[in-house]
Amino acid sequence: MSLSEHIKWNEHGLVPAIAQDWQSGDVLMMAWMNAEALELTLKEQRAIYYSRSRQALWRKGEESGNVQRLHELRLDCDGDTLLLKVEQIGGIACHTGRRSCFYQLADQQGELAVTDAVLKDPDEMYGSKA
Amino acid sequence: MSLSEHIKWNEHGLVPAIAQDWQSGDVLMMAWMNAEALELTLKEQRAIYYSRSRQALWRKGEESGNVQRLHELRLDCDGDTLLLKVEQIGGIACHTGRRSCFYQLADQQGELAVTDAVLKDPDEMYGSKA
Repeated sequence: MSLSEHIKWNEHGLVPAIAQDWQSGDVLMMAWMNAEALELTLKEQRAIYYSRSRQALWRKGEESGNVQRLHELRLDCDGDTLLLKVEQIGGIACHTGRRSCFYQLADQQGELAVTDAVLKDPDEMYGSKA
Repeated sequence: MSLSEHIKWNEHGLVPAIAQDWQSGDVLMMAWMNAEALELTLKEQRAIYYSRSRQALWRKGEESGNVQRLHELRLDCDGDTLLLKVEQIGGIACHTGRRSCFYQLADQQGELAVTDAVLKDPDEMYGSKA
Protein backbone atom coordinates (compact mmCIF):
# COMPACT_ATOMS: atom_id res chain seq x y z
CA MET A 1 0.00 0.00 0.00
CA SER A 2 1.48 3.33 -1.02
CA LEU A 3 1.46 6.34 1.28
CA SER A 4 -1.18 7.95 -0.89
CA GLU A 5 -3.56 5.07 -0.14
CA HIS A 6 -3.15 5.62 3.61
CA ILE A 7 -4.34 9.20 3.29
CA LYS A 8 -7.91 10.37 3.71
CA TRP A 9 -7.95 12.94 0.93
CA ASN A 10 -10.64 15.58 1.36
CA GLU A 11 -13.46 16.16 -1.11
CA HIS A 12 -11.09 18.23 -3.26
CA GLY A 13 -8.42 15.51 -3.30
CA LEU A 14 -6.20 17.46 -0.90
CA VAL A 15 -4.58 16.91 2.50
CA PRO A 16 -3.26 19.63 4.83
CA ALA A 17 0.51 19.65 5.38
CA ILE A 18 2.11 21.42 8.33
CA ALA A 19 5.71 22.56 7.84
CA GLN A 20 7.85 22.66 10.97
CA ASP A 21 11.47 23.74 11.28
CA TRP A 22 13.33 20.48 11.90
CA GLN A 23 15.76 22.11 14.36
CA SER A 24 13.95 24.87 16.25
CA GLY A 25 10.55 23.16 16.16
CA ASP A 26 8.89 26.40 15.03
CA VAL A 27 5.73 25.82 13.03
CA LEU A 28 6.36 27.71 9.82
CA MET A 29 3.17 27.37 7.77
CA MET A 30 0.36 25.11 6.70
CA ALA A 31 -0.48 24.41 3.08
CA TRP A 32 -2.17 21.69 1.04
CA MET A 33 -0.98 18.80 -1.10
CA ASN A 34 -2.62 16.70 -3.75
CA ALA A 35 -1.32 13.23 -4.59
CA GLU A 36 1.12 14.56 -7.19
CA ALA A 37 2.54 17.16 -4.80
CA LEU A 38 3.08 14.50 -2.15
CA GLU A 39 4.76 12.17 -4.60
CA LEU A 40 7.09 14.91 -5.80
CA THR A 41 7.83 16.03 -2.24
CA LEU A 42 9.06 12.54 -1.38
CA LYS A 43 10.91 12.12 -4.65
CA GLU A 44 12.68 15.48 -4.61
CA GLN A 45 12.95 15.68 -0.78
CA ARG A 46 11.67 19.25 -0.76
CA ALA A 47 8.21 20.64 -0.01
CA ILE A 48 5.94 20.87 -3.01
CA TYR A 49 2.38 21.95 -2.27
CA TYR A 50 -0.79 22.45 -4.25
CA SER A 51 -1.93 26.04 -4.44
CA ARG A 52 -5.69 26.18 -4.06
CA SER A 53 -5.85 29.77 -5.35
CA ARG A 54 -3.74 29.07 -8.44
CA GLN A 55 -4.98 25.47 -8.78
CA ALA A 56 -1.48 24.34 -9.63
CA LEU A 57 1.55 22.73 -8.06
CA TRP A 58 3.47 25.15 -5.88
CA ARG A 59 7.16 24.37 -5.69
CA LYS A 60 7.84 26.22 -2.44
CA GLY A 61 10.77 28.61 -2.88
CA GLU A 62 10.61 28.57 -6.65
CA GLU A 63 10.47 32.37 -6.89
CA SER A 64 11.88 33.43 -3.53
CA GLY A 65 14.59 30.82 -3.27
CA ASN A 66 13.20 29.90 0.15
CA VAL A 67 13.06 26.18 -0.56
CA GLN A 68 12.05 23.77 2.23
CA ARG A 69 14.37 20.75 2.29
CA LEU A 70 12.57 17.71 3.65
CA HIS A 71 13.97 15.99 6.73
CA GLU A 72 10.93 13.98 7.84
CA LEU A 73 7.42 13.39 6.61
CA ARG A 74 4.83 12.10 9.05
CA LEU A 75 1.17 11.12 8.85
CA ASP A 76 -1.25 11.46 11.74
CA CYS A 77 -3.35 8.74 13.39
CA ASP A 78 -6.42 9.17 11.23
CA GLY A 79 -4.50 9.77 8.02
CA ASP A 80 -5.83 13.23 7.28
CA THR A 81 -2.90 15.52 8.11
CA LEU A 82 0.78 15.51 7.15
CA LEU A 83 3.65 16.95 9.20
CA LEU A 84 6.83 17.92 7.36
CA LYS A 85 10.01 18.62 9.23
CA VAL A 86 12.00 20.88 6.99
CA GLU A 87 15.12 22.93 6.72
CA GLN A 88 13.89 26.36 5.72
CA ILE A 89 16.44 27.74 3.30
CA GLY A 90 16.84 31.50 3.74
CA GLY A 91 15.11 31.31 7.14
CA ILE A 92 11.89 32.77 5.73
CA ALA A 93 8.73 30.72 5.16
CA CYS A 94 6.15 33.50 4.86
CA HIS A 95 5.39 35.55 1.76
CA THR A 96 5.36 38.64 4.03
CA GLY A 97 9.10 38.13 4.58
CA ARG A 98 8.70 36.74 8.08
CA ARG A 99 10.20 33.54 9.42
CA SER A 100 6.81 31.93 10.12
CA CYS A 101 3.32 32.58 8.81
CA PHE A 102 1.98 32.52 12.40
CA TYR A 103 3.11 36.01 13.36
CA GLN A 104 -0.25 37.25 14.68
CA LEU A 105 -0.86 36.59 18.36
CA ALA A 106 -4.38 36.77 19.79
CA ASP A 107 -5.01 37.93 23.32
CA GLN A 108 -7.79 36.49 25.47
CA GLN A 109 -10.26 38.96 23.95
CA GLY A 110 -9.28 37.89 20.44
CA GLU A 111 -7.36 41.08 19.61
CA LEU A 112 -4.48 40.41 17.24
CA ALA A 113 -0.96 41.77 17.60
CA VAL A 114 1.94 41.28 15.18
CA THR A 115 4.85 39.72 17.08
CA ASP A 116 7.43 38.89 14.42
CA ALA A 117 9.63 41.19 12.38
CA VAL A 118 9.83 41.30 8.60
CA LEU A 119 13.27 39.89 7.80
CA LYS A 120 13.24 40.69 4.10
CA ASP A 121 11.17 43.03 1.97
CA PRO A 122 8.70 40.93 -0.08
CA ASP A 123 9.46 43.10 -3.12
CA GLU A 124 13.04 41.93 -2.84
CA MET A 125 11.93 38.31 -2.48
CA TYR A 126 9.58 38.24 -5.44
CA GLY A 127 10.59 41.26 -7.49
CA SER A 128 8.55 44.46 -7.33
CA LYS A 129 5.05 44.25 -8.80
CA ALA A 130 5.16 48.03 -9.47
CA MET B 1 -13.05 43.60 14.44
CA SER B 2 -13.24 40.35 16.36
CA LEU B 3 -10.81 37.50 15.76
CA SER B 4 -13.59 35.54 14.10
CA GLU B 5 -13.90 38.24 11.44
CA HIS B 6 -10.19 37.97 10.61
CA ILE B 7 -10.58 34.28 9.81
CA LYS B 8 -11.24 32.85 6.39
CA TRP B 9 -13.67 30.10 7.42
CA ASN B 10 -13.92 27.28 4.90
CA GLU B 11 -17.11 26.31 3.10
CA HIS B 12 -18.18 24.33 6.17
CA GLY B 13 -17.56 27.26 8.54
CA LEU B 14 -14.42 25.66 9.94
CA VAL B 15 -10.75 26.53 10.30
CA PRO B 16 -7.88 24.09 10.95
CA ALA B 17 -6.13 24.42 14.31
CA ILE B 18 -2.68 22.98 14.94
CA ALA B 19 -1.87 22.12 18.56
CA GLN B 20 1.78 22.39 19.55
CA ASP B 21 3.35 21.64 22.92
CA TRP B 22 4.27 25.09 24.26
CA GLN B 23 7.51 23.84 25.82
CA SER B 24 8.92 21.03 23.65
CA GLY B 25 7.59 22.45 20.39
CA ASP B 26 6.25 19.01 19.40
CA VAL B 27 3.29 19.20 17.04
CA LEU B 28 0.63 17.17 18.82
CA MET B 29 -2.36 17.12 16.47
CA MET B 30 -4.50 19.06 14.06
CA ALA B 31 -8.22 19.47 14.44
CA TRP B 32 -10.92 21.90 13.36
CA MET B 33 -12.80 24.76 15.00
CA ASN B 34 -16.01 26.55 14.23
CA ALA B 35 -16.67 30.06 15.51
CA GLU B 36 -18.20 28.79 18.75
CA ALA B 37 -15.27 26.45 19.46
CA LEU B 38 -12.82 29.30 18.92
CA GLU B 39 -14.77 31.64 21.17
CA LEU B 40 -14.92 29.02 23.94
CA THR B 41 -11.22 28.18 23.52
CA LEU B 42 -10.32 31.82 24.18
CA LYS B 43 -12.83 32.22 26.99
CA GLU B 44 -11.92 29.01 28.83
CA GLN B 45 -8.21 29.06 27.84
CA ARG B 46 -8.30 25.39 26.82
CA ALA B 47 -8.61 23.76 23.41
CA ILE B 48 -12.17 23.17 22.28
CA TYR B 49 -12.53 21.83 18.76
CA TYR B 50 -15.39 20.96 16.45
CA SER B 51 -15.65 17.27 15.67
CA ARG B 52 -16.50 16.83 12.00
CA SER B 53 -17.48 13.17 12.51
CA ARG B 54 -19.74 13.86 15.49
CA GLN B 55 -20.78 17.30 14.20
CA ALA B 56 -20.53 18.68 17.71
CA LEU B 57 -18.18 20.65 19.94
CA TRP B 58 -15.30 18.54 21.17
CA ARG B 59 -13.99 19.64 24.53
CA LYS B 60 -10.54 18.05 24.22
CA GLY B 61 -9.81 15.90 27.26
CA GLU B 62 -13.43 15.71 28.37
CA GLU B 63 -13.37 11.90 28.55
CA SER B 64 -9.65 11.17 28.82
CA GLY B 65 -8.74 14.02 31.13
CA ASN B 66 -6.05 15.01 28.63
CA VAL B 67 -7.07 18.64 28.49
CA GLN B 68 -4.98 21.12 26.46
CA ARG B 69 -4.41 24.33 28.43
CA LEU B 70 -3.98 27.28 26.12
CA HIS B 71 -0.78 29.29 26.31
CA GLU B 72 -0.91 31.09 22.98
CA LEU B 73 -3.24 31.32 20.05
CA ARG B 74 -1.89 32.52 16.71
CA LEU B 75 -3.37 33.18 13.28
CA ASP B 76 -1.41 32.82 10.05
CA CYS B 77 -0.78 35.44 7.38
CA ASP B 78 -3.77 34.61 5.22
CA GLY B 79 -6.12 33.99 8.13
CA ASP B 80 -6.96 30.40 7.31
CA THR B 81 -5.03 28.41 9.95
CA LEU B 82 -4.72 28.68 13.74
CA LEU B 83 -1.74 27.62 15.83
CA LEU B 84 -2.35 26.81 19.50
CA LYS B 85 0.52 26.49 21.91
CA VAL B 86 -0.76 24.29 24.67
CA GLU B 87 0.18 22.49 27.83
CA GLN B 88 -0.87 18.90 27.19
CA ILE B 89 -2.20 17.61 30.49
CA GLY B 90 -1.33 13.93 30.95
CA GLY B 91 1.28 14.17 28.18
CA ILE B 92 -0.99 12.37 25.69
CA ALA B 93 -2.71 14.11 22.79
CA CYS B 94 -3.60 11.10 20.63
CA HIS B 95 -6.60 8.82 21.06
CA THR B 96 -4.22 5.87 20.48
CA GLY B 97 -2.51 6.73 23.78
CA ARG B 98 0.53 8.30 22.16
CA ARG B 99 2.01 11.69 22.92
CA SER B 100 1.43 13.04 19.40
CA CYS B 101 -0.90 12.00 16.59
CA PHE B 102 2.03 12.16 14.14
CA TYR B 103 3.60 8.85 15.08
CA GLN B 104 3.86 7.42 11.56
CA LEU B 105 7.07 8.26 9.74
CA ALA B 106 7.27 7.86 5.95
CA ASP B 107 10.49 6.87 4.26
CA GLN B 108 11.49 8.19 0.85
CA GLN B 109 9.47 5.42 -0.84
CA GLY B 110 6.38 6.37 1.19
CA GLU B 111 6.50 3.31 3.46
CA LEU B 112 5.15 4.08 6.92
CA ALA B 113 6.76 3.04 10.20
CA VAL B 114 5.39 3.63 13.70
CA THR B 115 7.99 5.54 15.71
CA ASP B 116 6.25 6.43 18.99
CA ALA B 117 5.25 4.21 21.87
CA VAL B 118 1.76 3.89 23.32
CA LEU B 119 2.02 5.54 26.75
CA LYS B 120 -1.41 4.52 27.99
CA ASP B 121 -3.91 1.88 26.89
CA PRO B 122 -6.81 3.65 25.12
CA ASP B 123 -9.24 1.36 26.97
CA GLU B 124 -7.90 2.84 30.17
CA MET B 125 -8.23 6.37 28.81
CA TYR B 126 -11.79 6.07 27.57
CA GLY B 127 -13.14 3.01 29.38
CA SER B 128 -13.39 -0.33 27.58
CA LYS B 129 -15.94 -0.48 24.76
CA ALA B 130 -16.27 -4.26 25.31
